Amino acid sequence: MAPHGQNRMVRSCRALGAIQDLDETLDLVLEEAMAVVGAEAGTLWFWDEEEQVLRARVVRGPAARQLKGRTLAAGEGLAGAVLASNRPELVSDARRDPRWAGRFDAATGFVTRSVLVLPLRGREGPVGVLQFVNKTDGGLFGEEDLEMGLAFAGPAAVVIENSRLFDDRRRLLVSGLRTLAAALDARDPYTRGHSERVTAYALRLAEALGLPRPERELLERAGLLHDIGKIGIRDAVLLRPGPLDGEAWEQMRRHPVIGAEIVGQMEPRRLAEPVRLAVLHHHERWDGSGYPAGLAGEEIPLLARVIALADACDAMTSDRPYRSALGRDEALAEIRRCAGRQFDPELAAAFVRVMGG
Amino acid sequence: MAPHGQNRMVRSCRALGAIQDLDETLDLVLEEAMAVVGAEAGTLWFWDEEEQVLRARVVRGPAARQLKGRTLAAGEGLAGAVLASNRPELVSDARRDPRWAGRFDAATGFVTRSVLVLPLRGREGPVGVLQFVNKTDGGLFGEEDLEMGLAFAGPAAVVIENSRLFDDRRRLLVSGLRTLAAALDARDPYTRGHSERVTAYALRLAEALGLPRPERELLERAGLLHDIGKIGIRDAVLLRPGPLDGEAWEQMRRHPVIGAEIVGQMEPRRLAEPVRLAVLHHHERWDGSGYPAGLAGEEIPLLARVIALADACDAMTSDRPYRSALGRDEALAEIRRCAGRQFDPELAAAFVRVMGG
Repeated sequence: MAPHGQNRMVRSCRALGAIQDLDETLDLVLEEAMAVVGAEAGTLWFWDEEEQVLRARVVRGPAARQLKGRTLAAGEGLAGAVLASNRPELVSDARRDPRWAGRFDAATGFVTRSVLVLPLRGREGPVGVLQFVNKTDGGLFGEEDLEMGLAFAGPAAVVIENSRLFDDRRRLLVSGLRTLAAALDARDPYTRGHSERVTAYALRLAEALGLPRPERELLERAGLLHDIGKIGIRDAVLLRPGPLDGEAWEQMRRHPVIGAEIVGQMEPRRLAEPVRLAVLHHHERWDGSGYPAGLAGEEIPLLARVIALADACDAMTSDRPYRSALGRDEALAEIRRCAGRQFDPELAAAFVRVMGG
Repeated sequence: MAPHGQNRMVRSCRALGAIQDLDETLDLVLEEAMAVVGAEAGTLWFWDEEEQVLRARVVRGPAARQLKGRTLAAGEGLAGAVLASNRPELVSDARRDPRWAGRFDAATGFVTRSVLVLPLRGREGPVGVLQFVNKTDGGLFGEEDLEMGLAFAGPAAVVIENSRLFDDRRRLLVSGLRTLAAALDARDPYTRGHSERVTAYALRLAEALGLPRPERELLERAGLLHDIGKIGIRDAVLLRPGPLDGEAWEQMRRHPVIGAEIVGQMEPRRLAEPVRLAVLHHHERWDGSGYPAGLAGEEIPLLARVIALADACDAMTSDRPYRSALGRDEALAEIRRCAGRQFDPELAAAFVRVMGG
């Protein structure tokens, strides 16, 4: 390895410790790798598991602009073959190789001669392909280039898998909530949309309060789930068309506790516990007269106090079988009237302001 | 960098492209990194977010055996300080540094002199600390060692974050299912335990059939969720103590469709779609007389055919308000009798064998 190769490798690896933007980081890795193996062009293909294609995500070289975003079907081209075989390939003249997908050269006018193609594998399987094209000195890629290429391929694969795992986790979390919400909708179509509106109002208040982003994400989950315990309430109570009294009311009051039990099944705990507490306490009142625990003032978790306001506002401004909806202004006036008794007075004032009252 | 440093860095980076075991890979990375910076001992501390401690996960050097697994509280010691500040530290004599946690040396008899401590950060925040102890040539760690240390720290941080994300994803998936199951239990305590037993029977059959692991994981999810659509069935039908007839039966027959709608909310799709189909078709019959689609034979997805057997077996061997349970042998005899009409005959034969009939 030429001496400058050391520094390039160090720079490339260091970049992984301070990733802000995946594409920028990988672009740097590709740049350093191309300099070390001495390649005229390079492509980082990402394997798209869902669509079963390789996509040119990071591209450098004369035809980079035209190539970026293009796809290869599973098994197509040298990159497809390397993904499938999980074995690197050194090819001295790509145009004579039957696996070569010539259509990109045909489209861009670029002439591919020698190539070095390396599989990128994460712990769960293939994540992509790293491809170097045309030795800058006009020669052929050799064993030493292969060795160096593999050293760049390892960290690149790990970083790509990392970004995939982030994406999977986010989608699982969001879809888990949507699945639960769909379960409640199947139960009680009457309140469909209520949880979404409550969440939207709560987030408006949270932004006005300057709550940091992680806090707002917890609030979003809590908002979507605040009534999930209604899944456990008997039809005779949940779907009764008139106002509730006596025994029916007692049953309905159990929904925050049932909801907290359901949310208590969620992991990781560090993400679930604040949500569980918000669900459990969203019917507490500032003066201590709420349920289920009779907490008062700042004993009530902040997220629960925020949801209580959003929940009350949406309930008042929605039609019920036994009464018609209040207008927005009337509802906000009612909230102002109940501040200090039902609602946290400071939050209530901010909420009324945010909602334009 | 000494020439051997190049090869060590290449080897360390290549190891990331073929991770089988996280600890083994990180042990190799630490070994190569120690050789390059010339350290007598080294520790990879993992930040445990839930317990708020740094844990010595990978350790090399004379006191490695005693140190492994030990913990530092948040902010404790040089490692804790570096985690908090996110800035590397070069310390020429640790024992004179007020932040140094001397208790480990006291316990092991090892004498720490100079140290080089580097933060490991993933995209979401701190994941750990990389610590080098005592220059082998008796001198002090310098700027060049720091540069090289950072080059090893980058990929190590990404690998550690990946392992955390894997773990988060698994826990989210499992707990998402548990949360949904808890929601159904809140609805219909009568069938509590049914889904778990059906899943256990189905998995026994799947193992006997030699189904590969990814397939069995999908089956596990489908088993736990197969009746989730009952969340959407009215109490008057779901909780009726006698057998169902006419209109009530029509309503109850909707539960696979409702369940498939709920599961259809789950992402990533590649994991959810086979589960959705299994839930949708678990009441189809081999002769085409089942519901909701009237599929016959191998048109019915394999996972659905497996669940149908496990479901029938558990239903027959459980008490119902209007009839008592059959014994295991009677239930298996009934399954044998219905093979080829209600059940896939080959699967039914295997199931009877597996369940000891």
